[in-house]
Amino acid sequence: MKRKTVILPALFLLSAFTAGASTVYSSSKTPLSDGWRFVRQDLGGVWEILRESEKGKPTEYPLWTDVTLPHCYNAEDSVDPDLNYYQGAAWYTRTLETANPFPGGRTLLEFEGSGQVTDVWIDSKHVGSHTGGYDGWSLDITDAVSGKSSVTLSVRCDNSRDFEMIPSQISDFTIAGGIYRPLNLVYLPSSYVSTFVIKPVLDGKTGYVDVEFTTMGPSGGKISIEVLSPDGQVIAVSDAPGRVASVKKPQLWSDRAPVLYACRVKWTDAKGGTQEFVEPFGFRSTEFREHGPFFLNGKRVLLKGTHIHEDFAGMGAALSESVIRMQMRQMKDMGANFVRLGHYQQSELVLSLCDSLGIMVWEEIPWCRGGLGGDGYREQARRMLRNMIAQHRNHPSVILWGVGNETDWPGDFEVFDADAIHDFMGELTRLSHSIDPSRPTVTRRNDRNADVVDVYSPSIWDGWYSGKFFDYPQKDLAAIEKYPRFFHAEWGGDSHPHRHTEAKDFGNLERNDANGDWSETYIIHLFDWNLHQQARLDRLTGSAFWTFRDFATPIRHDNPIPYMNQKGVLEHDGTPKESYYVFQSYWTEDPMVHIYGHTWPVRWGAPSDSHEVLVYSNCERVELFLNGKSLGIKTRNVDDYPAAGFHWDVIYAPGDNTLKAVATQGKTVIGDEISQYYETRKWGAPAQVNFDVKSLGGDKYRVDILLTDSSGVPCLDAAHFVRFAFAGDGRLLDNMGTSHGSRRIQLANGRACIDVECKSSGAVSAYLEKEGIGGLVDIVCGKN
Amino acid sequence: MKRKTVILPALFLLSAFTAGASTVYSSSKTPLSDGWRFVRQDLGGVWEILRESEKGKPTEYPLWTDVTLPHCYNAEDSVDPDLNYYQGAAWYTRTLETANPFPGGRTLLEFEGSGQVTDVWIDSKHVGSHTGGYDGWSLDITDAVSGKSSVTLSVRCDNSRDFEMIPSQISDFTIAGGIYRPLNLVYLPSSYVSTFVIKPVLDGKTGYVDVEFTTMGPSGGKISIEVLSPDGQVIAVSDAPGRVASVKKPQLWSDRAPVLYACRVKWTDAKGGTQEFVEPFGFRSTEFREHGPFFLNGKRVLLKGTHIHEDFAGMGAALSESVIRMQMRQMKDMGANFVRLGHYQQSELVLSLCDSLGIMVWEEIPWCRGGLGGDGYREQARRMLRNMIAQHRNHPSVILWGVGNETDWPGDFEVFDADAIHDFMGELTRLSHSIDPSRPTVTRRNDRNADVVDVYSPSIWDGWYSGKFFDYPQKDLAAIEKYPRFFHAEWGGDSHPHRHTEAKDFGNLERNDANGDWSETYIIHLFDWNLHQQARLDRLTGSAFWTFRDFATPIRHDNPIPYMNQKGVLEHDGTPKESYYVFQSYWTEDPMVHIYGHTWPVRWGAPSDSHEVLVYSNCERVELFLNGKSLGIKTRNVDDYPAAGFHWDVIYAPGDNTLKAVATQGKTVIGDEISQYYETRKWGAPAQVNFDVKSLGGDKYRVDILLTDSSGVPCLDAAHFVRFAFAGDGRLLDNMGTSHGSRRIQLANGRACIDVECKSSGAVSAYLEKEGIGGLVDIVCGKN
Repeated sequence: MKRKTVILPALFLLSAFTAGASTVYSSSKTPLSDGWRFVRQDLGGVWEILRESEKGKPTEYPLWTDVTLPHCYNAEDSVDPDLNYYQGAAWYTRTLETANPFPGGRTLLEFEGSGQVTDVWIDSKHVGSHTGGYDGWSLDITDAVSGKSSVTLSVRCDNSRDFEMIPSQISDFTIAGGIYRPLNLVYLPSSYVSTFVIKPVLDGKTGYVDVEFTTMGPSGGKISIEVLSPDGQVIAVSDAPGRVASVKKPQLWSDRAPVLYACRVKWTDAKGGTQEFVEPFGFRSTEFREHGPFFLNGKRVLLKGTHIHEDFAGMGAALSESVIRMQMRQMKDMGANFVRLGHYQQSELVLSLCDSLGIMVWEEIPWCRGGLGGDGYREQARRMLRNMIAQHRNHPSVILWGVGNETDWPGDFEVFDADAIHDFMGELTRLSHSIDPSRPTVTRRNDRNADVVDVYSPSIWDGWYSGKFFDYPQKDLAAIEKYPRFFHAEWGGDSHPHRHTEAKDFGNLERNDANGDWSETYIIHLFDWNLHQQARLDRLTGSAFWTFRDFATPIRHDNPIPYMNQKGVLEHDGTPKESYYVFQSYWTEDPMVHIYGHTWPVRWGAPSDSHEVLVYSNCERVELFLNGKSLGIKTRNVDDYPAAGFHWDVIYAPGDNTLKAVATQGKTVIGDEISQYYETRKWGAPAQVNFDVKSLGGDKYRVDILLTDSSGVPCLDAAHFVRFAFAGDGRLLDNMGTSHGSRRIQLANGRACIDVECKSSGAVSAYLEKEGIGGLVDIVCGKN
Repeated sequence: MKRKTVILPALFLLSAFTAGASTVYSSSKTPLSDGWRFVRQDLGGVWEILRESEKGKPTEYPLWTDVTLPHCYNAEDSVDPDLNYYQGAAWYTRTLETANPFPGGRTLLEFEGSGQVTDVWIDSKHVGSHTGGYDGWSLDITDAVSGKSSVTLSVRCDNSRDFEMIPSQISDFTIAGGIYRPLNLVYLPSSYVSTFVIKPVLDGKTGYVDVEFTTMGPSGGKISIEVLSPDGQVIAVSDAPGRVASVKKPQLWSDRAPVLYACRVKWTDAKGGTQEFVEPFGFRSTEFREHGPFFLNGKRVLLKGTHIHEDFAGMGAALSESVIRMQMRQMKDMGANFVRLGHYQQSELVLSLCDSLGIMVWEEIPWCRGGLGGDGYREQARRMLRNMIAQHRNHPSVILWGVGNETDWPGDFEVFDADAIHDFMGELTRLSHSIDPSRPTVTRRNDRNADVVDVYSPSIWDGWYSGKFFDYPQKDLAAIEKYPRFFHAEWGGDSHPHRHTEAKDFGNLERNDANGDWSETYIIHLFDWNLHQQARLDRLTGSAFWTFRDFATPIRHDNPIPYMNQKGVLEHDGTPKESYYVFQSYWTEDPMVHIYGHTWPVRWGAPSDSHEVLVYSNCERVELFLNGKSLGIKTRNVDDYPAAGFHWDVIYAPGDNTLKAVATQGKTVIGDEISQYYETRKWGAPAQVNFDVKSLGGDKYRVDILLTDSSGVPCLDAAHFVRFAFAGDGRLLDNMGTSHGSRRIQLANGRACIDVECKSSGAVSAYLEKEGIGGLVDIVCGKN
């Protein structure tokens, strides 16, 4: 196929001072990471930055700090046990040198995401504004930098509380502030491709690639589109939009084989500049069949899902690239093939990794809780929906567009108008369909709105916010019948790391979040029960448990780790809790085995008591050994709850014990081993805090505490709040929201710990709140 | 004299939703001190307060704290060494029950002062707003509370940076936020006296009392005015404005005899309610004679003045009544007869105490630094001038209206228009004269504007910001010649409490604030020199040194106590520095004697060196004893600098020494005694931090540290910054801005200290910044 080269007309839509919605397509983006100064307060105006100053003069103040991007200004205070997190304005500034190489070229700033309202100045000129913390946007600053080799770039972010913005402040997550995703400098030719939509079509055994694009700028140009096979070979070329390739028997994208094709695009501007980029895509078909199940490429696939917030220990919303890569790898390793990006659109990198790892995505706009606001509120919702689809529609991993969450939750307005909310979600669904007819819409928790979306999840939290988890399969079955297309988003419960219990028979406990013991023991049983039930529900499309990683939330001050939503199977810093392995045992195929209890050093009971030991494994057989003696081989049986049959009743020896599990899958033999002390003494009233200090390398130490009674017996059910403090030439490594990084934390089985940095000497104190029990330990550097 | 009772017409000016400017006249004001909840951040709106909530629900957040008024939300962070102080919005709310006893009565909220922009809601109704942090204002909330016995009162304060407000953010003091002066609930009749102006006139030996008043409300009423003598006797009555009394040979108000008359006013509303109040006044005449000096009641009086900021350790701008009473008593005891309320109008109580103590006042509006803004800025300046005069004009202590400070200091606007600033100050002067022709206007530091005010102070800071202090008298003499009416406002310098030096000959040191040693030794010499010179300047109207008490400032992070302007003769908590007694020795008459060195425990030098010992006393003679041996009697001679002749050259014994001074004034003999150690060893490099812990009673302890070299010799000139930290069941008592209440502080002669609260055990660390020198000390409660 050969076409005549044509100069394509380019739409003249340049508006230098309006924030653009689109992803910026370019192979050469320069992240503006360094050289920033930051101040976490509002200024009188950009003049405070521009006016002459010098050290020691009043104009030096307020004092600025040096930061690198991405940067979230709630990284620490969102989990500070003693503060409301900062919600207000903050400023960033740096020098920007530009040298656009293209004749008449355009210079853009691409914000991949910044919260929540962002304003930008070049020198004293206000060049753009954007409302919404989770969609990418760009600014054409060509005119503002014209004739200047160096300018001052200033950015004001503002996450102030505002009823007329989404998401609502009564949402269960931090609504962070900052330039918390990359900010890129991009040079483009005088005209350039501004949107590029790939529509892979499967027709029988042939795949077709349809392309649409739009351009910006006055000059026009010509396009070259090369379609690349998964191994990088050019399989078609085109110089125009429309159908650019047909592929016989294309390799299909799936969770198990996430095969990616791509379009390599080169735009040559009439004035001579060129723009090049590569846009991956995939061939796949999805179907949420009426009353279930879900089909991918014509085959039933159970959606094994989780949720993830853009929030990490010490980083807040400003996740580093390595953390994003780690989290998606951890998610894949757990066996998930689905993630709901709750409750807002996330970084481009997250979507790319979902593409390459084979994790299907429900992405949603942050219309979450509170009700429905006015014109600005609604327009923000529409805009963020348009942007989400425009920016992420080429990703084959995305299978659902979410149009809201918990929109039945009132609070932000004097009037709660369920009809208006119903109508507005209908409007958003129609808008989504009009832009992207290929994907269904979805929402969770607003039964009144179940009829205006394609896929619906009611709220089923049995065993946590209500009811008992043994009721679980009945609830799902009823929902499968009730709703045309049911998916079960959000189930699970909180667990405080390292808290375990000898209690049993959890399945019939009537629970709500106020009376739970927050033990890992409870939550692994809940997950276990649900997973073994879900595995047998043939018509279930899938589910997504809440949630993959603990995350900061401003509305849970009284949690064992204050201001942490602790429903994750990972701690806030990515450390797996025991429950991570429960999922892995159900969802993965690479042989794994994990004895429940790695973080449970001391079990307890009478000398002859029998105790349940669980081994989570996806292998055919597991043999368990206590102190070197076999307790028998068990064979995996998913119907045999708990642990798919890998459960033993064990009589521990008083004192030290070793448990060893040997798992066999075909010819593969793997093992796991833990030590547990068996405490037979009963403990009395808490009397003493005992300390242990160990080096973590460098200047870092971990201080472990254990609460005992007056006889030194550990208080193994103690759950007091404890406070740590530090004196010396160092600091607590706190405000991390982890089991080892919070200066206020509930004991887990009488234990807690804190990490510190200490250069030469220091002391750590730990006191139980309100009890007056506690004391201090010296950190003797180089000796602990 | 008998008059017919008339129903006076009442001006109908009710505007329920506009903040009124006036003082509210009433004998029954209820301070709304208790029951407040507070949150230091902005909200989405008052709806966050009004919507239903319960503990544990998202609507419970952000978390509020209980506070009492007055309350300043920068009380701690304005002196936190590690923060920029919070500049933004905050909210207060409480339930308000009203029961106006009067038929058709009016219910008012009287804010005596709140910073810096204040908005008020009754339930969901916005009832008023006020811009400006230092003038009183009131709101008529009658309609808003009508028909309700209980309402929710919500107040939003905002001290955000704003170029278009006064004072400028480059001012050298905290621009605080909060309801930091009393907020009163006042019931008034349907109509009431809203302004009441007393104009005492001296004509020969007779005093006349002229009265003007205005009323608010539709009903009208009748007035009864009783004029009270200083001993409370009714000496005249009237039922109408105009001349209400003539007093033969009235007792005159003066600094030495602050005699107050008063008007007792009873307004009887036509509907039956009554309003009663007492308004003191005084008879006195003042004259700033051309080229000096100043005359009070026809006699030359030297204005012996200081300055005071509304700022106190642990309170910020929310000074308690007892602190205000203490500070004015301390000022009087120091011998001051003049104070410039820098740089804004202050609490009504301050003015009342100036009346009763005999302290003359320069009160000013906060047009301070930065330049000149637009319409809103200017209108704020005018409004605050009108309010200042309206609210404080009846105080006989007020002798000057200040119309700006340092208005030659640019920075806040791209254009600095000296002409416009000149014209605007002219306008303010004319406005002041038009309202109150009896008092001159004044400004400091803008030579361009010297011709538009009645009294002028240039900037003369010899020995601190420039020059040497021996140049002082020449500068004053030149200014007396140059300006028609010269007053010397602001002179002095910083001193770090407990820092002393054996250096000498300070008067010829060329100084600026960057190279000063900030010793008390330097500053007492500077004060001493200037005071003995001023005492001899016959044409000097007077001066006001800067400043009475250390105060927080956002622009001095690097000061020995970070963010403290340390030019006070009192510490931030009112503790006198040595310099307080220098002033007392020049300005008071009640016999006093004070050996310089109470906070100088160790002096140093070679065994046979001679050292200057100064005794500050207003007595005729002082005899000094060293270790019981007389060093001779000296006679006071104000021309004999330093210490008016009470200076001895002393050869200390190595080791412990006792100094005793015996002062004689007529038949009065008083004494003072201190102990000083004489260190003859030379010290090497700092090597060791030594700790001493002493009980302060209750749970409170003071930790003193001393830096020594490797041989244990104190490093008596060490001035490193040290950081304190605490671990245990207690806390540092820091963020006080004092020598014993800052966790980051410069050593003074190798020493520093910190107070802590500790219940059972704790440890305090002290480390020199950047040096790695330091350590810890245990607090063993009940044993230290």
